[in-house]
Amino acid sequence: MTMNRRILLAKRPVGLATRDDFSADEQAIPELQDGEALLKTLYIGIDPTIRTWLSTAKSYLPPVRIGEVVRSAGVGRVVDSKSDRFKAGDLVTHLVGWQEYSMLHDDSFATVFPGSMNPRHTLGVLGSTGVAAYAGLVYVGRPREGETVVVSAAAGATGSVAGQLAKIKGCRAVGIAGSDEKCRHVIENLGFDACINYKDDGFREALKEACPKRVDIYFDNVGGWILNEVLGRLNTGARIALCGAISVYNAEKKPPGPSNYLNLITVRGRMEGFNGMDHWGKHSEISAELARYMEDGRLKNYETVVDGLDEAWRSVNMLFTGENLGKLLVKVAES
Amino acid sequence: MTMNRRILLAKRPVGLATRDDFSADEQAIPELQDGEALLKTLYIGIDPTIRTWLSTAKSYLPPVRIGEVVRSAGVGRVVDSKSDRFKAGDLVTHLVGWQEYSMLHDDSFATVFPGSMNPRHTLGVLGSTGVAAYAGLVYVGRPREGETVVVSAAAGATGSVAGQLAKIKGCRAVGIAGSDEKCRHVIENLGFDACINYKDDGFREALKEACPKRVDIYFDNVGGWILNEVLGRLNTGARIALCGAISVYNAEKKPPGPSNYLNLITVRGRMEGFNGMDHWGKHSEISAELARYMEDGRLKNYETVVDGLDEAWRSVNMLFTGENLGKLLVKVAES
Repeated sequence: MTMNRRILLAKRPVGLATRDDFSADEQAIPELQDGEALLKTLYIGIDPTIRTWLSTAKSYLPPVRIGEVVRSAGVGRVVDSKSDRFKAGDLVTHLVGWQEYSMLHDDSFATVFPGSMNPRHTLGVLGSTGVAAYAGLVYVGRPREGETVVVSAAAGATGSVAGQLAKIKGCRAVGIAGSDEKCRHVIENLGFDACINYKDDGFREALKEACPKRVDIYFDNVGGWILNEVLGRLNTGARIALCGAISVYNAEKKPPGPSNYLNLITVRGRMEGFNGMDHWGKHSEISAELARYMEDGRLKNYETVVDGLDEAWRSVNMLFTGENLGKLLVKVAES
Repeated sequence: MTMNRRILLAKRPVGLATRDDFSADEQAIPELQDGEALLKTLYIGIDPTIRTWLSTAKSYLPPVRIGEVVRSAGVGRVVDSKSDRFKAGDLVTHLVGWQEYSMLHDDSFATVFPGSMNPRHTLGVLGSTGVAAYAGLVYVGRPREGETVVVSAAAGATGSVAGQLAKIKGCRAVGIAGSDEKCRHVIENLGFDACINYKDDGFREALKEACPKRVDIYFDNVGGWILNEVLGRLNTGARIALCGAISVYNAEKKPPGPSNYLNLITVRGRMEGFNGMDHWGKHSEISAELARYMEDGRLKNYETVVDGLDEAWRSVNMLFTGENLGKLLVKVAES
């Protein structure tokens, strides 16, 4: 009998997560019923949104309950099937959770990828990360050639794709990141025109210098005081695509909002929240376009892979301490 | 020789304006040159934006300089003309300023109205106020039948038109105002479905009760904590049309921004600043539509008229102390 190792939420983290916030167990996998398939987890995607699900904050999905398997997107391979939809050998992404196996049903919200594909890409650049970056930059931001696009968390999974897309669409791409090393990566490897280390003094001056024609689009992953500074540097008709606000997800008390929002009136600007999953219906065409850019070398993909399900909780913290480049994944099984 | 009495900015007000912040003089009116016309001021429109021009805050127009005539929209009658565009007897709106006479040039940014029209309407419901209300509600808000529209400063010039338009477009209209008397006016005379006195305790509960299906559109004239509360009550896909932020125009230090802006991500909402003047090109069709609603009784017009140019400074304060119902005007001359 195959056992399924699972990581459960034991208590809600305060600030950064600790090992004590989680527990583990093993459960026997029940026999498949008609219309079901068994998915063996290969990789778990570690996204900032997981941190919000561990709290009681309002999100687009309810909080994970105490004693429940931690919710995460992930990719696995179908190892057994009584389903017409999922075939043995298929790569499938869905909310696999922090566990070695998950059950698929014919009506699951899941996506089947070709079995030959790089499984990490199904979570990253050719999966939900790519769709989020594309939807935020293209659908919300509506870039026009020659405009200036600023991207925060520019070395991260979504930001790195959004900024490279801005270049591909003919814009000036300016990144914001948390170390000189990341800024070098953003400029040298990802091809941004400039990148600001927000931990340095003089952010306002640096932003002014990097955006001499002001900011037309801001793709925001971090919120907080950086959003406020960018709001103070907008061009007429600017658009802000709100993807997330990682700077506040660990905060127990909500920090003050951006007082410069008033500038939206002065410049007739638009600040709009979005969720990549709302655009999942366009996944095929978006990922086909992104795959072309990868093939012709204009879109580089970077990943940080952590080994082992038991390290998942620690990897969530890496998002907040800034240790990852590109998509952060936990490898659960080789194949 | 006709003399022109003018009110000049003597120093920048701190908080509410005082008489000492202004000075007055009289100037001889120069002889008309070809392409010029002389406009005798009938009414000055008192809008919150004037308060921003008296400060050094960034706005869509530069601050009024010390010693300069205070900038204001207004309407006058052409009393003398060497222009092909402006004829004696025409009603004309432009930035007349706080003075008895102003000069028009063939290339002035000015609008000619039929001489028989009610001059007060050219500044209010059938002028820039109507265009601002229409642009914010219809172009930015994009109302759909059955949606809930919340309007702050609902008894004011722009808010009262925006809320009535929401009703006309088939929405539930909920006002926010600063006294029980105003709330009664908003419901009984303007036909809103509900109105909340924001000075009462329990605003959050009152908003919940007035908006059982949450908020689809917020037409915001005030900013501050009320904007933050409404951000916490948005429906999926909500739109916020930022028209102004009268709650902060008198503030010397910018108050914190709305921490609930994060909710824009959760509900995939849009917050967009606009300026009615950007839509002045559609003035004819917008005012024709609004005039039809006035004729069939669905759009009521209210005004507060203060007598005399020397009272203009005091009337600006009335916007902030909440003493006006509808469009606030200073009458400078009868005809």
